[in-house]
Amino acid sequence: MRNLLDITDLTPQEINSLLSIAMDIIKSPEKYNTVCKGKKLATLFYEPSTRTRLSFSAAMMELGGNVLGFSDANASSVSKGETVADTVRVISCLADIIAMRHNKDGAPWVASQFASVPVINAGDGSHCHPTQTLADLLTVKRRKGGFDNLTVGFCGDLKYGRTVHSFTRALGRYKGIKFVFISPEELKIPNYLRQDIENKGFSYLETDSLDKHIASLDILYMTRIQKERFDDEEQYNRLKDSFILDVKKMNNGKSDMIVLHPLPRVNEIVQEVDFDPRACYFEQVLNGKYIRMALIYSLLQWRDGSNLQPVDYEVVEGGTCNNSKCISSTEQVKPLFKLMPSGKKSCFYCDELV
Amino acid sequence: MRNLLDITDLTPQEINSLLSIAMDIIKSPEKYNTVCKGKKLATLFYEPSTRTRLSFSAAMMELGGNVLGFSDANASSVSKGETVADTVRVISCLADIIAMRHNKDGAPWVASQFASVPVINAGDGSHCHPTQTLADLLTVKRRKGGFDNLTVGFCGDLKYGRTVHSFTRALGRYKGIKFVFISPEELKIPNYLRQDIENKGFSYLETDSLDKHIASLDILYMTRIQKERFDDEEQYNRLKDSFILDVKKMNNGKSDMIVLHPLPRVNEIVQEVDFDPRACYFEQVLNGKYIRMALIYSLLQWRDGSNLQPVDYEVVEGGTCNNSKCISSTEQVKPLFKLMPSGKKSCFYCDELV
Amino acid sequence: MRNLLDITDLTPQEINSLLSIAMDIIKSPEKYNTVCKGKKLATLFYEPSTRTRLSFSAAMMELGGNVLGFSDANASSVSKGETVADTVRVISCLADIIAMRHNKDGAPWVASQFASVPVINAGDGSHCHPTQTLADLLTVKRRKGGFDNLTVGFCGDLKYGRTVHSFTRALGRYKGIKFVFISPEELKIPNYLRQDIENKGFSYLETDSLDKHIASLDILYMTRIQKERFDDEEQYNRLKDSFILDVKKMNNGKSDMIVLHPLPRVNEIVQEVDFDPRACYFEQVLNGKYIRMALIYSLLQWRDGSNLQPVDYEVVEGGTCNNSKCISSTEQVKPLFKLMPSGKKSCFYCDELV
Repeated sequence: MRNLLDITDLTPQEINSLLSIAMDIIKSPEKYNTVCKGKKLATLFYEPSTRTRLSFSAAMMELGGNVLGFSDANASSVSKGETVADTVRVISCLADIIAMRHNKDGAPWVASQFASVPVINAGDGSHCHPTQTLADLLTVKRRKGGFDNLTVGFCGDLKYGRTVHSFTRALGRYKGIKFVFISPEELKIPNYLRQDIENKGFSYLETDSLDKHIASLDILYMTRIQKERFDDEEQYNRLKDSFILDVKKMNNGKSDMIVLHPLPRVNEIVQEVDFDPRACYFEQVLNGKYIRMALIYSLLQWRDGSNLQPVDYEVVEGGTCNNSKCISSTEQVKPLFKLMPSGKKSCFYCDELV
Repeated sequence: MRNLLDITDLTPQEINSLLSIAMDIIKSPEKYNTVCKGKKLATLFYEPSTRTRLSFSAAMMELGGNVLGFSDANASSVSKGETVADTVRVISCLADIIAMRHNKDGAPWVASQFASVPVINAGDGSHCHPTQTLADLLTVKRRKGGFDNLTVGFCGDLKYGRTVHSFTRALGRYKGIKFVFISPEELKIPNYLRQDIENKGFSYLETDSLDKHIASLDILYMTRIQKERFDDEEQYNRLKDSFILDVKKMNNGKSDMIVLHPLPRVNEIVQEVDFDPRACYFEQVLNGKYIRMALIYSLLQWRDGSNLQPVDYEVVEGGTCNNSKCISSTEQVKPLFKLMPSGKKSCFYCDELV
Repeated sequence: MRNLLDITDLTPQEINSLLSIAMDIIKSPEKYNTVCKGKKLATLFYEPSTRTRLSFSAAMMELGGNVLGFSDANASSVSKGETVADTVRVISCLADIIAMRHNKDGAPWVASQFASVPVINAGDGSHCHPTQTLADLLTVKRRKGGFDNLTVGFCGDLKYGRTVHSFTRALGRYKGIKFVFISPEELKIPNYLRQDIENKGFSYLETDSLDKHIASLDILYMTRIQKERFDDEEQYNRLKDSFILDVKKMNNGKSDMIVLHPLPRVNEIVQEVDFDPRACYFEQVLNGKYIRMALIYSLLQWRDGSNLQPVDYEVVEGGTCNNSKCISSTEQVKPLFKLMPSGKKSCFYCDELV
């Protein structure tokens, strides 16, 4: 059985296969509209996310399947103190596949240890959001034809934005990618990601000026400054208006640059930019539905197969994760760590370096 | 593409067509139980409404379609600051038709400007609620055979009750209607509606006595005094018990009078009246489901057609709407106004007179 | 038309029939996957319960039917002051069968008086939870082959735990059952249940020691100490860790003892016990889905039949129920009482003795 917890759970070949299936769905939707007849998707959303939840729902429905679940932890047994482990064991009796959104880093890893059906990570804390990344990749594939030798700018909240982390990791598997990280000092990319990029020998630069660098970009990935990630409202208000994309800045971009955004946006892209043909963020939503169709279909197909993803780390016990947002701080699970060939150790659930 | 935002978006001929389709559905439901197979309805409910949401859901299911959506703004991306405009652009990628309930006046008008699928207004603030009106019309049609020359009494909260406004406008298109508005001074019909009725030359009277006028009525439309419309609980408590319909008052009504109520009721109709055959409010619920089936079916049929409703006003820019409950006060939209042949100007979104 | 409000609404023969249908569904699910095509289940959940709601949903979907409803009273018309009576009359127009969870004792009895479709009690206050009992019975049937001559221990919160009350009543209809009630003094079984057991002449004992009695049990039914039933948090904290089932205690149990739990559990069964083959609580979830399929299917079949359950009491008027948690304290319903042949009187809605 296979899960999708992090984008790197999929080999580049498997990602290509998913992209091909998505393209085939776009071309011939009628071939797929009953392939999940009699199957049920459970959407377990411990924090609200209309877009992602409804995208999964629409995807399953267009495959002919059914959807059940919850959209809010307060209307669930969670309020009675149930663990993620028990919840997914229960849901495994009621559904054929699970899509989980959780506020704690690593929760879907816990789920995958106890579920007897495939688990899809639909976003965990500020950690991973692999299906958004698949949507991003499908959008790039359809607009750019491929992934090699692209210069990719990320702008906004690069510290907490999980879509940034996920997309960066996914692109890190192709050739000749150049990264440009554009953010205020307070919201720079986290250390583990910087080290990961350095280890792989990719070219990257960090800057606080979108104006200076927009002309070099093939892809501009804008992100929201997320209010819910700040403890301090004043700091939020000071930063939220930085790094706004407007028509003037767009004029300095290449004619075939594409603008991505995981949505929802607040005001980091002004509405006028929506009418620029380089703006792809609503296309991403549509592509997100198609790639989720391909993913659900494939995971159910792969369910009884044995094509497990070979990993380059060893799973070891011992110690405690120091990340207070890690699911291991609240859920009664064995503390596990990934031991890399380099000798580095990181939390199995949330990837925090020890 | 057609939307249903206000009841007057439909010509009297189109309303007749919807009523006929609904009657045919009642007669031969099996003809319609797969006509929306593979289609999806999105129910976007920014404020709770069990009845309306479940009626839309049941309607779509009886047409063979699927339903997705949210029932509460808190469990949606709205809590992250997303605009109505962006939400409907996203939902247009995921569903084939939208039913929207919103707490702000005019929100479905904003939605219709950005959606690429048909939008149905399922109630906006205290402004319009056209599908309730269609349910009311179907109930009158089935009970009375037609609409001309009826004396129609409205009782209760006529100031904030959007169902009253919508039904009054709809009836204002038939011949020989007499209106009797029965309410406390504080809850009389709004000015724009009074002017509208006067302009059309209809006979109407305003009174605070149900007892005096019930004998003249063909239709008695009761409404709830809505707690959530009051800032002041004391005023609510003082008014809520006025204008209660009981068996004694019913005894003075005509034998073929019908009693309508949009539900939910609190105590404005005593339970004993439910057993009077003239009480039609639960029939209205059933009729509401059938007319919503007819509406969804028709809007999806009309989607690629060009039968746009000719309007008698010009849309002009300039100025700001003064209604603090208008969606234009919170959503970043162009201020637009309807300029009538008479020279009157009203807000495009919420109908507030300038 | 038939409802399932309390487990004793079903004769032992009917329970056997439901168990047989469930076993047939397990054996040949494909025979049943379209039997409810075109039917709709309404899940009216006035308080949250993920497990029960999703189990009903999955059951209806596996029968080929559709599901609509609400999972939280706040997102429903209840917040506008609508009665249960009116809500179910409305829902009767929109769905073919109702599953209701309510925080007040007796609410489904009110619903059954006003609904025109079958009503299933999905848990009312601390009163009844008959479909959990059916799941328990199916689990015992599949593991033990039958019900006679079993020694059944209940451990934990026996005062408020409605699953305990329901399962005790159901077992009280078989032969040679011995009951062992294991609880702290504060959480002993309620009087009416004790009297009921005594009247039927069953053997029972009450104790506060699980250790002393586990060796005698064929079935150990563990329950959660429910935080939401306590006014006083300190008392909750003092009691919640009593009566925890761990591996050491399990070692004293019979090799063919089975452990049941209605879930969610907090910490009353330690995780290590999950891997003991005698632990059946996740099997109960699966069995819960199958028995709910059998129930929905049967109630829709029985809908037009006349096989009403003969009762041994007379329904009489007069007086007021003294249970402040009874639905009759908030809903405008006629106070009704069951008059037993013994002369005892209890509330028709919540069973509280007068």
